[in-house]
Amino acid sequence: MSKILTSIEEAIRIADLKDGMTISFHHHLRNGDQVLNMVVKAVADMGIKDLKLAASALFAVHGEIVEQIMDGTITSIDTNYIAGPVADAVSEGRLKNIATLRTHGGRPRAIIEGSLPIDVAFIAAPSSDKMGNINGVRGRASCGSLGYAFPDAKKAKKVIVITDYLVDYPNNPISIDETLVDHVVVVDSIGDPAGIVSGTTSMTRDPIAHVIAQKAAEVIEASGLLKEGISFQTGAGGASLATAYYLREKMLQAGIKGSFGMGGITGFFVSMLEEGLLESLIDVQCFDLEAVESIKKNKQHLEVSSSFYASVNSKSCAVNQLDVVILGATEIDVNFNVNVATDSNGRIMGGSGGHSDTAEGAKLTIIVSNLLRSRLPIVVEKVTTKVTPGETVDVLVTERGIAVNPLRADLIERFSQAGVQVYDIRELKSMAEAIAGHPAKLNTSDRVVAEVEYRNGEIIDRIYAIE
Amino acid sequence: MSKILTSIEEAIRIADLKDGMTISFHHHLRNGDQVLNMVVKAVADMGIKDLKLAASALFAVHGEIVEQIMDGTITSIDTNYIAGPVADAVSEGRLKNIATLRTHGGRPRAIIEGSLPIDVAFIAAPSSDKMGNINGVRGRASCGSLGYAFPDAKKAKKVIVITDYLVDYPNNPISIDETLVDHVVVVDSIGDPAGIVSGTTSMTRDPIAHVIAQKAAEVIEASGLLKEGISFQTGAGGASLATAYYLREKMLQAGIKGSFGMGGITGFFVSMLEEGLLESLIDVQCFDLEAVESIKKNKQHLEVSSSFYASVNSKSCAVNQLDVVILGATEIDVNFNVNVATDSNGRIMGGSGGHSDTAEGAKLTIIVSNLLRSRLPIVVEKVTTKVTPGETVDVLVTERGIAVNPLRADLIERFSQAGVQVYDIRELKSMAEAIAGHPAKLNTSDRVVAEVEYRNGEIIDRIYAIE
Repeated sequence: MSKILTSIEEAIRIADLKDGMTISFHHHLRNGDQVLNMVVKAVADMGIKDLKLAASALFAVHGEIVEQIMDGTITSIDTNYIAGPVADAVSEGRLKNIATLRTHGGRPRAIIEGSLPIDVAFIAAPSSDKMGNINGVRGRASCGSLGYAFPDAKKAKKVIVITDYLVDYPNNPISIDETLVDHVVVVDSIGDPAGIVSGTTSMTRDPIAHVIAQKAAEVIEASGLLKEGISFQTGAGGASLATAYYLREKMLQAGIKGSFGMGGITGFFVSMLEEGLLESLIDVQCFDLEAVESIKKNKQHLEVSSSFYASVNSKSCAVNQLDVVILGATEIDVNFNVNVATDSNGRIMGGSGGHSDTAEGAKLTIIVSNLLRSRLPIVVEKVTTKVTPGETVDVLVTERGIAVNPLRADLIERFSQAGVQVYDIRELKSMAEAIAGHPAKLNTSDRVVAEVEYRNGEIIDRIYAIE
Repeated sequence: MSKILTSIEEAIRIADLKDGMTISFHHHLRNGDQVLNMVVKAVADMGIKDLKLAASALFAVHGEIVEQIMDGTITSIDTNYIAGPVADAVSEGRLKNIATLRTHGGRPRAIIEGSLPIDVAFIAAPSSDKMGNINGVRGRASCGSLGYAFPDAKKAKKVIVITDYLVDYPNNPISIDETLVDHVVVVDSIGDPAGIVSGTTSMTRDPIAHVIAQKAAEVIEASGLLKEGISFQTGAGGASLATAYYLREKMLQAGIKGSFGMGGITGFFVSMLEEGLLESLIDVQCFDLEAVESIKKNKQHLEVSSSFYASVNSKSCAVNQLDVVILGATEIDVNFNVNVATDSNGRIMGGSGGHSDTAEGAKLTIIVSNLLRSRLPIVVEKVTTKVTPGETVDVLVTERGIAVNPLRADLIERFSQAGVQVYDIRELKSMAEAIAGHPAKLNTSDRVVAEVEYRNGEIIDRIYAIE
């Protein structure tokens, strides 16, 4: 009448994890996560080799598993976002097999349809009861939504909950329930709450970001979408979150109330919910502790799965209901293709996350960025790595000007009527090059280290080992 | 960006429902349900024949579909409980094929494992948004939990939501989400709230029921299970619910707090939750409007699926956490096998529902009943229909005495120590026969009209056409 085991090692043994299998993790504990490292260390100590690591995202905190990449414990990686030493290891060609970079909607599609089979899912749970009913809102390492773990729990052959906060049966609320869970392991700590909060969720003080954000808010207004019931998603930091600030100003001025805010949720969205400017929040991941506090107490703050958020093999998904999404870029090319996976040296430093999903789903997709990034033009002839296809990107907003995808003649017409000046994207490229010069041609090897998979499963680009 | 269709007929056409397929329904609207009749009528009008009706339960209100049983629209029935004219029609041999009577845990097992494939699930939803995010707590016909509809939504090839209360996107809370829903149809009314409430949820005034209930509470005390953290389930009426009343008295006297109450939830359980005598309620179905009101506002009142409640192919289910369940019977035999499907004439008038599931799961299973039922002995040599196997039943409590299953020597010992008088079940049978005489032998035909399937899929008895 209890699923509690005494250690991670015992769970690995009972789950019958063997060489060549796939293990999975969710990333809601972000840079505070201790579970992935603990499990990979235990697996390595047990001498299991050649595993595929299917993690919804990998952060700097996971740098210590580079050791297990080097020694052959981990030979494949399948993830939606990757930063820090593990990204470097992949870029430098240290992983045996080619990594797969997916989107937040592509991962649940692949898991549910069976093209990414998971043998053992390890689910970090801020609270659990003895039967594996878990949530992310109780406990010492509360992270709020557990949305990225839902497909893993549903489809993995074995599901192991790892918690540091055991509660009486039945846990409440129940985010993932006991019908899906095989074993529960109680550890001292699943993560450091201080690391759960992204460093990028506070409002920027960078004046250029505010210039860009003001322009982006004007673009939204000119698009005709700034009306009762508007829904939107922004990234967590910089000009993207600042755009929400100016959008809020415009909503207040016009007396408009929105319907929902979505995405990684920040305290800024919570304050808009609480002041009645949004009817609800659709939350697949909490970006800060205000969001965690809100999802705990506010029933209009909804926890949803990644399938709900963005999967194309769901019968429908929420990104298709978005009016506006404001996203970043490391590069955008003259065909509006966007790179968020590699820097201009071709080194992996991110990944799509929900970028491609929301870009395709939303009525209006805006890329906000400084015209220069690390003293290099943001607009290039051809992106180093194509992550989000140009046909799903509508507007580029920089501090020096705005460009509209020629496919969106309707927007060009609207902006013209509203007096919003629009540049050809090549003009923005020329402006940038006038300041920074032409970027040197990138030298990469011809050895593929990662494939970029679009949300529907199509491989849309490859990433090469850096020289 | 909307799944709304204009009519049930259009939904049936688009879902491509054909002769010989299986359609499914949930029963949370109970005797107030209008959806099942509407759909079956529409199907008949469209000339579709030979359907299997997989409904979690069928009530008197569904009597009008006897017409579609007679004309060959419905030729198979698969259900957990069946009462009223449809039950009569089956008993009288009017259904073309043999009906299947399952348990509340057996149905989700069969659906999830694929042995009861559903082509089109029609889900009555007290509220829905345009994309099919539904709950049972908003709207004119609020019924609370939608737990029995979860497996249908998960596995049916097509899922059609039928609602009379359309709300803005996204609905909140979300019980069944848009990832599983194909179409939404808005109708004038899905049901009559007055019929949602079972007639049997109020505390009985029958003095004999209170005598039985007091004895049952003494049995629980003597069993050693009346201690901090006790969990229990009772039926909705009569001596079963009255047992909860006396159990509550004993908990108050002893200063004991329970953990959870489960099942079909009534206002009595809600009051125990609210006064702190229960930590939470696990609710697969609301039996009255107090329960509906509670699940709407109280986060310790949990909506769960039937898989969570009782399925043996879940990785675990909640019935296994029950300390005590108090259940009824139409007959119990000298081997403690229980009948709740047919009356003493062999006529179908119910079914297991959660009877067999909770009996097998709970530490202590008590059957409460008058010694005589309709002037016939409740204890018989062999039950007319075996629904719940004797090895899962521990104690029979009647107003004239208590019998304990010989398999539970531990209980007999405890009761002896506690001074609770125990009879051999044959002694209770003799007492009853001394009053009512020996029941006449039942005459049924040899034509099988229904099979009784145990929760694990085994056929444990057959029901014959009445003569």
